[in-house]
Amino acid sequence: MDLTALTDKLTAGLAGLHYGDQPTALYEPIRYIMALGGKRIRPLLTLLGAQLFTDELDGALKPALAVEVFHNFTLMHDDIMDQAPLRRGQPTVHEKWNPNVAILSGDVMLVRAYELLLDMPPALLAPMLRRFSQTAAEVCEGQQWDMNFETETQVSIAQYLDMIRLKTAVLLGFALELGARLGGASEQDADHLRQFGVDIGLAFQLRDDLLDVYGDAATFGKRVGGDIVSDKKTFLLLTAQAQADATQQAQLARYIGQPVADADAKVQAVRAVYDKLDVRPQTEALINRYFADALHHLERVATPAARKEPLRQLALQLLERES
Amino acid sequence: MDLTALTDKLTAGLAGLHYGDQPTALYEPIRYIMALGGKRIRPLLTLLGAQLFTDELDGALKPALAVEVFHNFTLMHDDIMDQAPLRRGQPTVHEKWNPNVAILSGDVMLVRAYELLLDMPPALLAPMLRRFSQTAAEVCEGQQWDMNFETETQVSIAQYLDMIRLKTAVLLGFALELGARLGGASEQDADHLRQFGVDIGLAFQLRDDLLDVYGDAATFGKRVGGDIVSDKKTFLLLTAQAQADATQQAQLARYIGQPVADADAKVQAVRAVYDKLDVRPQTEALINRYFADALHHLERVATPAARKEPLRQLALQLLERES
Repeated sequence: MDLTALTDKLTAGLAGLHYGDQPTALYEPIRYIMALGGKRIRPLLTLLGAQLFTDELDGALKPALAVEVFHNFTLMHDDIMDQAPLRRGQPTVHEKWNPNVAILSGDVMLVRAYELLLDMPPALLAPMLRRFSQTAAEVCEGQQWDMNFETETQVSIAQYLDMIRLKTAVLLGFALELGARLGGASEQDADHLRQFGVDIGLAFQLRDDLLDVYGDAATFGKRVGGDIVSDKKTFLLLTAQAQADATQQAQLARYIGQPVADADAKVQAVRAVYDKLDVRPQTEALINRYFADALHHLERVATPAARKEPLRQLALQLLERES
Repeated sequence: MDLTALTDKLTAGLAGLHYGDQPTALYEPIRYIMALGGKRIRPLLTLLGAQLFTDELDGALKPALAVEVFHNFTLMHDDIMDQAPLRRGQPTVHEKWNPNVAILSGDVMLVRAYELLLDMPPALLAPMLRRFSQTAAEVCEGQQWDMNFETETQVSIAQYLDMIRLKTAVLLGFALELGARLGGASEQDADHLRQFGVDIGLAFQLRDDLLDVYGDAATFGKRVGGDIVSDKKTFLLLTAQAQADATQQAQLARYIGQPVADADAKVQAVRAVYDKLDVRPQTEALINRYFADALHHLERVATPAARKEPLRQLALQLLERES
């Protein structure tokens, strides 16, 4: 199946999920956040992982949906912690209802994610649930590091990369590994696919950091420079801070962490430092390295190259690259 | 093993659990809440359930600890929602750290609870994880009903009993069912034990409602009348409201839901209505009925009566009854 057919399969599967009925305040927020949409990348990776090895994808559907429900659970709880007012242009659950509802509905979503994973061949159940639990804990660790970094003055680039690996990349890796094992992959092939997913996840997050500063306002969907305005310690800022000379350090210090009346001036000033230090090409180089590492892992998977094409296409789409 | 030996086994097991190390803000609160103590009733029920059928209890230890970790996860999240400042006389996690830490640490606890359940015979894994997930969702439903009831004017006694069944009793039932299955019980015996646990849980919660009003201040540990002062819709209040004549309705309405300067006068006035309506003996009668139902289920379990003695003793202790 191509990406469109797989997405249709996921959409139908999501529409068929039953989370629960009563009390409404517990289950309505789950239906609400799941209906907000999104690109369904993670469950797509699970189906694509299975499809590398088999054409029988029905057995991978519920586990794929489990990954999507888990991902939305993390969004619901992260939005409380980040006090985010909007998610995909709509009010977040804690805003539309209240934080208590968002806590408890999120808890049930995590339970439902585990429940959806139970429809698996018995031999895979314990090992895959163990891997899922490890991944889930790592995602929480990533969120905690991300919150810690907000108030820490010294964050290294290595710490930042480890944070985005935990918060974002490991779940993409697990989604693929899960699908691969469900499709009948060897442990070795599944591990290569996990690493492919992690590398793509890292590249994807770095590209997000890059687009925030250098993206096209018309297509980015978010306000360009938002990370700079909010003093977010991204790969770009940490790289600039690590490489700036005394003058550039002073320029950054005048804006970062300071109350600034003119947000546009702040974005321009910080971007000027980035430009002088070649932060953009440095970031692009790291994205390219992760992408190359990912493709290297994909090449080593023992399945015909033609079978790998939809997965390679999705990776290209995610990074908005050509060829 | 008697109750003391089983409790020692649990204490050693809990001391050996490793939740994770970094970031500290994620894992330290887990160690903190788990170290606050408590009677460890739920994991004790799991071991007692297993011991009805086998003397080999090592295989039931990790699943028993899973139930205790899950229970403490619900306490950590409930305390945020209830804005509770203290838990077992110590600051709650959201007070000692902050609500975000309590949300995220709680999330990891739920993950760790599932992880601890994975050490189970393969044949039991899927069915018991399914039962656990159902129970976990029910506990969340109970908490949501409990929060809903705070602002609802009409709560029936049936709704209240269903709420405490979900919020408190089903987990005691699951703890026993799990232990029984791990000990080798038939599905039928495990189901009787589940129902025994649910009935004991209902009786236990009603006894808690009763002690709040009629308990001995010296031994109760909490302020006597606290439920009355906070307008909590307990079995006692709902029964009184359902049976009060016009004069008594007016007496209740003068105090319940009203800002009252003299808390002791409020407790005395509401208790006077309870006394006139025989609410205390009515509550005791219902506790006795649940206790009798519980024993009836225990009798039907196909194992020698001598094996049932420690479980019967625990039930008696829980309800502070003799013989």
